Amino acid sequence: MDPSPTDPESPPSSPQRRGLLVVLSSPSGAGKTTISRLLMAADPAITMSVSATTRPMRPGEVDGHDYQFVDDARFQNMVEASEFAEYATVFNHRYGTPAAPVRAAVEAGRDILFDIDWQGARQLEASMDKDLITIFLLPPSIAELERRLRARGTDNEAVIASRMQRAADEIDHWAEYNYVLINEERDICLAQVRTIIAGERLKRSRQSGLNDFVRTLVSPA
Amino acid sequence: MDPSPTDPESPPSSPQRRGLLVVLSSPSGAGKTTISRLLMAADPAITMSVSATTRPMRPGEVDGHDYQFVDDARFQNMVEASEFAEYATVFNHRYGTPAAPVRAAVEAGRDILFDIDWQGARQLEASMDKDLITIFLLPPSIAELERRLRARGTDNEAVIASRMQRAADEIDHWAEYNYVLINEERDICLAQVRTIIAGERLKRSRQSGLNDFVRTLVSPA
Repeated sequence: MDPSPTDPESPPSSPQRRGLLVVLSSPSGAGKTTISRLLMAADPAITMSVSATTRPMRPGEVDGHDYQFVDDARFQNMVEASEFAEYATVFNHRYGTPAAPVRAAVEAGRDILFDIDWQGARQLEASMDKDLITIFLLPPSIAELERRLRARGTDNEAVIASRMQRAADEIDHWAEYNYVLINEERDICLAQVRTIIAGERLKRSRQSGLNDFVRTLVSPA
Repeated sequence: MDPSPTDPESPPSSPQRRGLLVVLSSPSGAGKTTISRLLMAADPAITMSVSATTRPMRPGEVDGHDYQFVDDARFQNMVEASEFAEYATVFNHRYGTPAAPVRAAVEAGRDILFDIDWQGARQLEASMDKDLITIFLLPPSIAELERRLRARGTDNEAVIASRMQRAADEIDHWAEYNYVLINEERDICLAQVRTIIAGERLKRSRQSGLNDFVRTLVSPA
């Protein structure tokens, strides 16, 4: 889990840091899922947040890995017990991020990636602002976005029209994010996301080991 | 001056950005001067701020390049006309950063590096907070700091003792900086500084071209 000592993002003398919460949002078709997958493959310190959901499990999904599958009553209990860092209803199913494992990851120096929309990002900012960064991916053009949606070959015209409308609504919120990238070339976009995360890890406020280091520096044992 | 399109720090479709003001502080001997020199050599978008000073010009120095050399009366006029973004007195000579060229650089998308101490950093934060980031370099140990000061071979014991005291005072202010790096290996430290700058350039607030880009995206001509 620990980055190697020659990794520029990890100061060799300061191993201890707080984890980082990274929200990656984009309209459907702007590459968020691909970038997320590549990011986690490239950096073992980053894992995806596991949401609780009331939607039925699909073939191939694993409870506790893809989602934590719960019934409506259990979900409602979690809402009332303030166990969620954010939650929302999408197409009649409820989705939420349990706060406790996220807080535990941050304390342990692990980074968590969130694949959520602007409404989820707003809720997370309200509850976990200090550990959170938000990144929005824009498509290079609307024509390219539509081309990517059509290239999937799974949706009919009505679904594509509805996705395009939803994409426009999502893009409307680009200015609420800390970082905004134009995903024109996948590898450049991935490198930019990694650069942002590497830089954020070097912030003084995230380097929980620095206090001890400076104490040793100023008053050697 | 423009970064190449394959540079991960420069989104190909978003060429316009505000410049970044980078303060690099460290105790004497922690490597600030070397890192600054290597940073500017590696990245032509970054130049060093040129201070005004009342100290006499030394052989080899060029007016307007190393410093803007002014007399006491002129310096005092500049202070009274609020022309400085920060100024200080060091060993009976006055040093100050004229604000106008710094503001012009930011508007033109050029980055400026400041080699100043914590007092200068505080003044710059007060006047230019939104465009400023501050980075503090710590030595890996006090013994290493003293070794580096002695390795210069230019100072007697009294001067070294006074530099060590000054270093301790400077280190006292590490927690006022946005980023803190331990300069154990020069090349890792340089890579970290470059990562921080590349990440900061990707912040939405610095990408002044994004507004126009999103307008074109949502309503193509």
